[in-house]
Amino acid sequence: MNHLIAVDWGTSSLRVARIARDGTVLDQRASARGILTVPAGGFPEVLQETCGDWLDEPDSLCLLSGMAGSRQGWREAPYCPCPAGFSELARSLAWIEPGRIALVPGLSCEHDDVPDVLRGEEVQVFGAIALLRQRDGVFVLPGTHSKWVHVAEGRVQSFATFMSGEVYALLRQHSILARMMPADDGALDDEAFTRGVRHAQDSGSLLRSAFSARTLALFDRMAAPALPSYLSGLVIGEELRMRSDTSAEVVLIGAPALTQRYALALQALGCESRSLGPEATWRGLWALARTLE
Amino acid sequence: MNHLIAVDWGTSSLRVARIARDGTVLDQRASARGILTVPAGGFPEVLQETCGDWLDEPDSLCLLSGMAGSRQGWREAPYCPCPAGFSELARSLAWIEPGRIALVPGLSCEHDDVPDVLRGEEVQVFGAIALLRQRDGVFVLPGTHSKWVHVAEGRVQSFATFMSGEVYALLRQHSILARMMPADDGALDDEAFTRGVRHAQDSGSLLRSAFSARTLALFDRMAAPALPSYLSGLVIGEELRMRSDTSAEVVLIGAPALTQRYALALQALGCESRSLGPEATWRGLWALARTLE
Repeated sequence: MNHLIAVDWGTSSLRVARIARDGTVLDQRASARGILTVPAGGFPEVLQETCGDWLDEPDSLCLLSGMAGSRQGWREAPYCPCPAGFSELARSLAWIEPGRIALVPGLSCEHDDVPDVLRGEEVQVFGAIALLRQRDGVFVLPGTHSKWVHVAEGRVQSFATFMSGEVYALLRQHSILARMMPADDGALDDEAFTRGVRHAQDSGSLLRSAFSARTLALFDRMAAPALPSYLSGLVIGEELRMRSDTSAEVVLIGAPALTQRYALALQALGCESRSLGPEATWRGLWALARTLE
Repeated sequence: MNHLIAVDWGTSSLRVARIARDGTVLDQRASARGILTVPAGGFPEVLQETCGDWLDEPDSLCLLSGMAGSRQGWREAPYCPCPAGFSELARSLAWIEPGRIALVPGLSCEHDDVPDVLRGEEVQVFGAIALLRQRDGVFVLPGTHSKWVHVAEGRVQSFATFMSGEVYALLRQHSILARMMPADDGALDDEAFTRGVRHAQDSGSLLRSAFSARTLALFDRMAAPALPSYLSGLVIGEELRMRSDTSAEVVLIGAPALTQRYALALQALGCESRSLGPEATWRGLWALARTLE
């Protein structure tokens, strides 16, 4: 391999990076061509438009992670069942052009006869394991659907999905709570946010705690501009309430705006965290590419 | 009082009943003129249109419960703080025309420095206490915002609100789960519903359990027509998970379609229930009227 073209192809965005053999990220590009914007059969063309110049270079390898490997994507790359390590992931690549373009599979696991899935986060977690040289612990990837990934000896043992980002958006924009809130979220109100996080620890269910965003406003105990931060604290706090080990340090992986919010929430609960950004994706894909040589 | 005009004026509907001195419901009418459809100052006119013929009769008393007494209603009737019995409620009526037309106040209570409120349900609970001759227990009023009301010695000690109906509707119609579901809910699938109720007991949070409606479909372990019932079971099951006394019989008050669903969920968890319908409202307002004589 001369260089790697690393592709993070999500539902609503497409990011690509050109990575040198030694792991240096040489160039990055991003667009809004998430898989939902791509018609059936249109994936090769969109990839060509985005980084055709890189693909034309000799001896290049292209690895795609994320929803490109889903049923609605380029082609379905079957989930790799947990526990799964880096080598199982590498063996399960779905090749589109042998030796040149491959889809990284997602992971699946099972709790109480109910399956769970992720796609794209597996690359970030393996990237974080490599970057931090940390082979055990809890890796949290906040987002529309947050993923809590349990890693032991460098292998993903299990994980759980929380619909936190999506439920926040629904409550924020479409529920009765929206009526009392300003149009824009504004900057995070740290005090209201941590109050929400703490209230979520005692309430036992978001179905119940969410109504407090209404009553606190109704009784003039919280100002309208603070309500979105409070609600965000309730939702993230509910997710954090589910930690199995409340004292263990957590690794956060994602966009800084989100990881900072989770770090603040964890801090309010007396829990340490470390954060990583998009570099985890590039590192994960690069490490995968190296195993193929 | 010659007869009572009992008015149950909610957010989206208006129901009225003409009740004889002895408690017999002589006549009932319903319309879609909930308070959201009434312009400021328009309440007297809508009431006149709905039951002006009854109001014109001599020596009639009109009691209105529900959102008509809210800030967005006819006039705000301040919440009566818990613990509150029937006599506190009667003393706290907000008279629009002294001796002739009054608004019934809602109740407020407080848990961990967070207030909670209800409006309209207090009349149903006091009606149920009278109808069932049951002065202690848990009274559950399912709906958009379900209320769990704790009664001891005929007085409301405290209550809690769950945004179950609203969260179900948001997840059902606007979340990623909606994409996998049929357009209409169809008849309740008892098996899928109780599976959801049971899964909610172990999952610890709806943020997590809700995603199982997606993965079960993704892995072809649940057919699309069963998904709305399963999701309904997850949401109602989450509410039931919060019961403080899991063995105590529960009194359900509300529309039969909803109370039947809750009764089925409770049964699946080995808990008995009794159900009451709209008669609880009329009985509560009638009993209030009798105390004014």
